[in-house]
Amino acid sequence: MYDRLKGFRDFYPDEMGPRRVAMDALEGAAARYGFREIGTPALESTQMYVDKSGEGIVDELYSFTDKGGRDVALTPELTPTVARMVVAKQQELSKPIKWYSTRAFWRYEEPQQGRFREFYQTNVDIFGSSDPRADAEVLAVAADGLTELGLTSEDFEFRVSHRDILGGLLEAFDADVDVEEAIRTVDKREKIERAEYLDGLAAAGLSYDQAERFDDLLAGDDLDALTEFAGTERVDDAVSNLRNVLAAAENLGVREYCDVSLTTARGLDYYTGVVFECFDSTGEVGRSVFGGGRYDDLIEEFGGQPTPAVGVAPGHAPLNLLLERAGVLPEGEFTADYYVLQVGDTEAEAAEVATALRDRGNVVETDVSGRSFGAQMNYADGIGAETVVIVGEQDLANGEVTVKDMESGDQTTAPFEDFPGDRDRPTLEDYQ
Amino acid sequence: MYDRLKGFRDFYPDEMGPRRVAMDALEGAAARYGFREIGTPALESTQMYVDKSGEGIVDELYSFTDKGGRDVALTPELTPTVARMVVAKQQELSKPIKWYSTRAFWRYEEPQQGRFREFYQTNVDIFGSSDPRADAEVLAVAADGLTELGLTSEDFEFRVSHRDILGGLLEAFDADVDVEEAIRTVDKREKIERAEYLDGLAAAGLSYDQAERFDDLLAGDDLDALTEFAGTERVDDAVSNLRNVLAAAENLGVREYCDVSLTTARGLDYYTGVVFECFDSTGEVGRSVFGGGRYDDLIEEFGGQPTPAVGVAPGHAPLNLLLERAGVLPEGEFTADYYVLQVGDTEAEAAEVATALRDRGNVVETDVSGRSFGAQMNYADGIGAETVVIVGEQDLANGEVTVKDMESGDQTTAPFEDFPGDRDRPTLEDYQ
Repeated sequence: MYDRLKGFRDFYPDEMGPRRVAMDALEGAAARYGFREIGTPALESTQMYVDKSGEGIVDELYSFTDKGGRDVALTPELTPTVARMVVAKQQELSKPIKWYSTRAFWRYEEPQQGRFREFYQTNVDIFGSSDPRADAEVLAVAADGLTELGLTSEDFEFRVSHRDILGGLLEAFDADVDVEEAIRTVDKREKIERAEYLDGLAAAGLSYDQAERFDDLLAGDDLDALTEFAGTERVDDAVSNLRNVLAAAENLGVREYCDVSLTTARGLDYYTGVVFECFDSTGEVGRSVFGGGRYDDLIEEFGGQPTPAVGVAPGHAPLNLLLERAGVLPEGEFTADYYVLQVGDTEAEAAEVATALRDRGNVVETDVSGRSFGAQMNYADGIGAETVVIVGEQDLANGEVTVKDMESGDQTTAPFEDFPGDRDRPTLEDYQ
Repeated sequence: MYDRLKGFRDFYPDEMGPRRVAMDALEGAAARYGFREIGTPALESTQMYVDKSGEGIVDELYSFTDKGGRDVALTPELTPTVARMVVAKQQELSKPIKWYSTRAFWRYEEPQQGRFREFYQTNVDIFGSSDPRADAEVLAVAADGLTELGLTSEDFEFRVSHRDILGGLLEAFDADVDVEEAIRTVDKREKIERAEYLDGLAAAGLSYDQAERFDDLLAGDDLDALTEFAGTERVDDAVSNLRNVLAAAENLGVREYCDVSLTTARGLDYYTGVVFECFDSTGEVGRSVFGGGRYDDLIEEFGGQPTPAVGVAPGHAPLNLLLERAGVLPEGEFTADYYVLQVGDTEAEAAEVATALRDRGNVVETDVSGRSFGAQMNYADGIGAETVVIVGEQDLANGEVTVKDMESGDQTTAPFEDFPGDRDRPTLEDYQ
């Protein structure tokens, strides 16, 4: 007997059903906005991740040397891969490029609730538009997917900020600040003690007084106070851009899910504009469910023409926690439309009935094990079959089959020659 | 600029569309027979593959030692994984277990036409039934998937054989035969010279006369001649089982795709009963498109209760070759239902129209780049939009939008307040 690897999961049908519903909801929302599906490799050159995130990333990767001597890594995220793909065909691809895909990614980190070494995300990205409407579309796809699953504004919120507000505000202080270090500290704000937080800002170059003032401005979420304090074009532009994105979100009907939250920083260094994270409104799911934002510099860093970009990547394990907490985890239960029950030597006729029903698009099971009447009926009940068609030798001798409605338990006979006849989905009522 | 790895592929939307159609066809067929989707890990313990296939398999694996010191491999096929999953929950799972899934697998081998290092398969398996109807269901799922894609009996054939016919026939010779070696030789029959083939059978223990006789019996595909020659219960049973599977396939309407072909051996040692391979009937796609068969011993070898099993695993790259050859490669082209065109400062109203149309399930794109009328119309044409809704400042001043049918080029105005109104999919005709 073999074990699966730590941090990896098997999804039996009972678990896969609800996951498929969630994936379909997100992908369906993306498709309605005109996003197209792509398919991407599981392995990439390790160097791509090192260049983007530094040598430190290697500790978190499933990386190895392949039999041809290449240093390769199991993809820990999609963004570098899609950036590579955009660069490879930038002349041919008409803008805006709107792509989605759902697949597994891998990180070698300690598994915890809602976090695994193999995890699934639905990535949704737009390349080639710096317009606030693009940011808003990405927010709207995520919001539409979540609300389609039954979540409401009572359940989740998008905490929205802008990288240049943080960066511009830090610039406005009379201090020599390591902006990336400061942003990383802001990103940890909710997870660490206040003293440690202020120490972190101090380490990044702010005095303690400045750190307090900086944090007051962030925590206040008052965009007017902030632009007034900074008094720089950079902060003015960032605030204006953030407001335009929220207005575009309003136009798309998803403003109600968005809260301005300037302490939302998103740790990843490649974000350049609006950033956001989805949280459980009740706080019960303690960590960010997923996030996204604008990364206008990445394509150029990957050797392409300057190309603005914005995206979101809902992860299915944390989304599952949120759906569970909200009590709207999809059932995704398997149910058969028909079970065709064989009694005696009726294999050919039963197969004919089953085939005719399948040809009409129905989900149909029949006996493949030579089981008794009782065992078959029990199985039909177990798979939630709506209708059981009993194909028995005696009935057939009279040119009939028996049609049984499993909910009511009622049954009647139907002419074998007229079942299903020209009906797409015949039920008991059709023959009563 | 980064390169993708050799033998790996990026699927841009133009390529992904047709692939998605093919995946949906196979998965849809499996679902209609009551198969349930599962999800499985990309990494497994290398030992599982070594135990099943011998140390030699390691040369073909993407295998490495992970950061926790585990010897792991990217899964080269699904069968060992599903066998592990069946064993892990064998008490809880009600039989028959009918599972399907589509995903990537990886083998370190030289890429060639229709063969990549990363490749996608739809696996369809039944556990817990040794009945010929189970074998036939697996054949029928594959046949239904292929015919739904537009392939006919002119295009493909399933070459069907039975492992015990080969094994039993070899036993019937007065010789000390290495059966596995002989079967591997038969498996190579089409690919090697006759002399080499006969040498191989001789190396496995047959005399050259016996090898000729053996091959005559195989190539004749005459089941009666074969049972008569062998005169053993094992061959009688195998022939009878093969006939029952073909009869069950007849009942399911897929017998026409099946040819008895006793030289079809399937190289993998774990097959135990009926085996089959799908070939291009024209021979243009020179190699087997995919294969499947019965493997009744594997679950027990993996530490489980004896559990019969049968499955098939169409690979999407070779299937693609067959679809291309037959001229039925699905278009899978992206087309939008609507493009909502913005003229002037109409962002809010355009978003309102787009949102209303999306809420009704339509695929709708709108401007996210601040483009001119002409550029937007051009884009709408490029994405195959059926209808363009022009939301212009002047029209809006009159309480109207313009509805344009892109095929005819005709257009008319519609009241903004009544678009889409209570229509799920409004077109030009609704407002003329």
